[in-house]
Amino acid sequence: MPSQPVTVSSSNHLQSDIKDYSLPNASWSPVMVGLYNEFMEKTVDGSWTRLPGCWRSVQFLKEKDLARIAKAVPVQMIEDARLFLRIAEMERLGFEYVIFHNDSEKKCVCLFQPGPLLEGLPGIVHGGALGTMIDTTLFMTAYNSANAVFTGTMTITFKSPVILGSVVRLEAKVTGAEGRKVFLFCEAQSSDRTTLFAEASAIFFQMK
Amino acid sequence: MPSQPVTVSSSNHLQSDIKDYSLPNASWSPVMVGLYNEFMEKTVDGSWTRLPGCWRSVQFLKEKDLARIAKAVPVQMIEDARLFLRIAEMERLGFEYVIFHNDSEKKCVCLFQPGPLLEGLPGIVHGGALGTMIDTTLFMTAYNSANAVFTGTMTITFKSPVILGSVVRLEAKVTGAEGRKVFLFCEAQSSDRTTLFAEASAIFFQMK
Repeated sequence: MPSQPVTVSSSNHLQSDIKDYSLPNASWSPVMVGLYNEFMEKTVDGSWTRLPGCWRSVQFLKEKDLARIAKAVPVQMIEDARLFLRIAEMERLGFEYVIFHNDSEKKCVCLFQPGPLLEGLPGIVHGGALGTMIDTTLFMTAYNSANAVFTGTMTITFKSPVILGSVVRLEAKVTGAEGRKVFLFCEAQSSDRTTLFAEASAIFFQMK
Repeated sequence: MPSQPVTVSSSNHLQSDIKDYSLPNASWSPVMVGLYNEFMEKTVDGSWTRLPGCWRSVQFLKEKDLARIAKAVPVQMIEDARLFLRIAEMERLGFEYVIFHNDSEKKCVCLFQPGPLLEGLPGIVHGGALGTMIDTTLFMTAYNSANAVFTGTMTITFKSPVILGSVVRLEAKVTGAEGRKVFLFCEAQSSDRTTLFAEASAIFFQMK
């Protein structure tokens, strides 16, 4: 497991020598790779951007934002900490995912292949794991489109079970704002968008 | 991915040779051990029960329930699958937790020590990880007190950040029922119960 001291400086931020976990690997199914390629084509004209797959939030948070976040919550650098979703990256049996962002539409699409370490009921993805992926897709939308990083309230309605190893397509968008509050909505669907696995609404708060 | 149709046999279920992950270990802080001992004392008169810490749901689900669940969702046995919360048990840096159940009060208390692999913002527990622990505490309450296993809707309001390595005390209870619907509420507090980290309400569905 890669581990290195982290201090708040520009050296923490995404650099070419930090591995990007959002690139296709041997564990990705043909469906996952197909959707990835489809979205990569949409990045060519600049309308969509592939967000890098970091293993710590400190790598993708902008320095000025990190300082603002530290005013609101007791941010601290812990040497062996790691982004929750990268908890099983070595085995590629946990969260395999990539997030694309569309700035003008204030929207993100996440392609998610849940591995066998995310089990709840036998053979089914744990509600907490799907919830974590929903939360993260909402967070990336809130941060990149509305400068909001604090989750206030999140409501998830689970519609149908996700089978381990299948591909989930999550789409989140900003639906409104009021003061520091940002309202968002997210749908988690099957790769062909014929089955709705879950839908969620959330309120995030912008940094002061 | 190895996969086979579900076979329900006693060999899947909790046996003495299956390790119990809910027992204190060297990673537990004195506060965590103190609360654990406090609740263990409450088990003496039988009012509270310590739930075993399984690493797959198939180990704690009753055989007859597994068959009923399999009628509603595409349950399958995947050889290398593992309960999401046990994803990092080897390093003891993920979800360290124990759940106690009070049958007469239809309530569960979960003692949770989130390790450094559950990071969201730097040094802070990921909302998805806290949400997963809330979901699991609600699930154990719904299953053990009301025979409900399917999460319908869950709403979480995050009140204050949880620092990695601290101890969280979650308490969930059944608040009502209507047909197959079971209503639950959960609070996640600091170990001394002076800080509210999050509160959640949920609707679970009973098995047919």
